[in-house]
Amino acid sequence: MTVSDEVSAVRAMFPDGVFPAGCPSRVVLDHVTSKWGMLVLVSLTDGPLRWSELRRRAEGVSEKMLAQTLKTLEADGFVHREAFPVIPPRVEYRLTGSGEELAAHLVPLLRWVAEHADAVVARRG
Amino acid sequence: MTVSDEVSAVRAMFPDGVFPAGCPSRVVLDHVTSKWGMLVLVSLTDGPLRWSELRRRAEGVSEKMLAQTLKTLEADGFVHREAFPVIPPRVEYRLTGSGEELAAHLVPLLRWVAEHADAVVARRG
Repeated sequence: MTVSDEVSAVRAMFPDGVFPAGCPSRVVLDHVTSKWGMLVLVSLTDGPLRWSELRRRAEGVSEKMLAQTLKTLEADGFVHREAFPVIPPRVEYRLTGSGEELAAHLVPLLRWVAEHADAVVARRG
Repeated sequence: MTVSDEVSAVRAMFPDGVFPAGCPSRVVLDHVTSKWGMLVLVSLTDGPLRWSELRRRAEGVSEKMLAQTLKTLEADGFVHREAFPVIPPRVEYRLTGSGEELAAHLVPLLRWVAEHADAVVARRG
């Protein structure tokens, strides 16, 4: 789809251009665009990762926030958690099919932001 | 670019897959994926809008949060504010060139989320 097709598609879904408070789209949007949700989803495009690896990549995330983020993304069906019955315990997180589809939209956004962030911050002076 | 090209491009920008705390990308990402930032940017793909129209579209946004969101997006260079010297005063907000580029990445994400949100919320049970 072209950008203007995408704009028309969004327009058709939100009559009168209103994004209604409390609708499912707003709830899910909050989850996937949260500070950590987005970095976790993009990190997992690399393949399954363990907790410690996710913590290292999303630099600055607290134990508590990572746990909360993963729980939300798991409940949304974007991330699958797998515990392996080994000693010491090993837990891996990976994208579900739906999570992969979603991440495919997040990665180009992150790339654009990463490419333009220096200029944006410089503009702020 | 294909999705895997996009993933490679992001990978190249973030050595070792780490998204460093406090880097410009993280700052800008927080602005554009904030609850209201995203809805404001997408609303403006329709063309210039006035304050009251933006408030109506991003349903539930407070005066204070809308003011703060617009100020941030203006400082980032994504939104241009124009005050017309008429009585009563008229102020319009519109996307800059950079804002349009950014919005082109937000609209497909919003479309995907809007299309899948009902299923996601149902999955949560």
